[in-house]
Amino acid sequence: MHWDEIGRSRRSLGTVQDTTPLIDDLPRLERLMRMRRDVRHFSDAAVADEAIARAIAVATLAPSVGYSQPWRWIRVDDPRRREAVITSHARANERARTDAHRERAAEYGALVLSGLASAPVHLAVCCDTTTVRGGGLGRQTMPQTLRDSVVMAVYGFWLAARALGLGVGWVSILDPADVMRVLDLPAGWELVAYLAVGHAAVPSTTPELVEQGWECYDERGVNVFRR
Amino acid sequence: MHWDEIGRSRRSLGTVQDTTPLIDDLPRLERLMRMRRDVRHFSDAAVADEAIARAIAVATLAPSVGYSQPWRWIRVDDPRRREAVITSHARANERARTDAHRERAAEYGALVLSGLASAPVHLAVCCDTTTVRGGGLGRQTMPQTLRDSVVMAVYGFWLAARALGLGVGWVSILDPADVMRVLDLPAGWELVAYLAVGHAAVPSTTPELVEQGWECYDERGVNVFRR
Repeated sequence: MHWDEIGRSRRSLGTVQDTTPLIDDLPRLERLMRMRRDVRHFSDAAVADEAIARAIAVATLAPSVGYSQPWRWIRVDDPRRREAVITSHARANERARTDAHRERAAEYGALVLSGLASAPVHLAVCCDTTTVRGGGLGRQTMPQTLRDSVVMAVYGFWLAARALGLGVGWVSILDPADVMRVLDLPAGWELVAYLAVGHAAVPSTTPELVEQGWECYDERGVNVFRR
Repeated sequence: MHWDEIGRSRRSLGTVQDTTPLIDDLPRLERLMRMRRDVRHFSDAAVADEAIARAIAVATLAPSVGYSQPWRWIRVDDPRRREAVITSHARANERARTDAHRERAAEYGALVLSGLASAPVHLAVCCDTTTVRGGGLGRQTMPQTLRDSVVMAVYGFWLAARALGLGVGWVSILDPADVMRVLDLPAGWELVAYLAVGHAAVPSTTPELVEQGWECYDERGVNVFRR
């Protein structure tokens, strides 16, 4: 899977005025979603800058409340900053192990919950809460929808990266204030996600927390209610 | 585009052990994302129950923090409940017009911001904040990630529905407390999204807020920073 090949095949797909789904759009989407996993083990293979740029471009096709597009993408290459984020994760992870998860501390401690050290690319994704785009439309009664817009872009990035052969892990065991300080980001921005990106060492379609026995598999498609 | 056809083509796609993306996965995903729009005008065409069930099943392949799967889907068919939600939207929308958007009140008033009245299907999506799944893993420092998990499932539903030929509108101009009361939902659930679902009257690849001149088009793929 090479980025240039994808770029070429893309151009043969027709214009963006197409509004009719193709017969296998759904199974193709489902297959991609099954291949998407939270990746915590990366190979040494490098990631082309263009692949990240391309995945971000596709990600920004996400819905956003009032067409506000509040996502801000920060690529973290500075080794000291990467190290500081890794340290923040280790601290938060140790606190979780001895506090919230103390009853399952041994089991929790055996889990690998971040691939930050081996991931060639670190990407922080923020919500610019000060943006004037959209004029506040659609978020007077449900202000969380601004952040929600960024979350959908993160999922879009995740799927686009996977389509490019990349793996992504969302590392949420971090103190957001640590990360904002380490990255020296504007006060009006809110950290939504910190992503580890690279080539998965062992691609899988099974959630690692299931493989490791932390949580059981559940794909009932239920939890549907009627009113 | 008929659901049974999609079901059949799906089964020919191979096993879920596949972990190699197909050469045109990215352009196919991008095309689907461009076709996905926030739909506020629906045709009279009915929606098969199976299509909704299928889109939900695909949506539940979304990532969730600690594999908690906190999404809860509520299909709202009761005419009185639908009507009460439509009334809640009208009230919140009028308040937004005369308050937050009073400087652009005429322009705002001309926008169609919900297709709830014409949508054959109403779907509320909630986050069960009381779920024990995942044991709280991954959300000690960033508790918003529980809701974020549901938001990603909503985006997955949106894309899956679009692949099935359906249009979805996320109606955020609603008082969540109104909706929770109207639908008589458990206290530990949080309303994340209220969706109008049906066949788009006029499918498009351009955001309606752009077509209507509320916000300008922006697809720079920028807002990328380095640290």
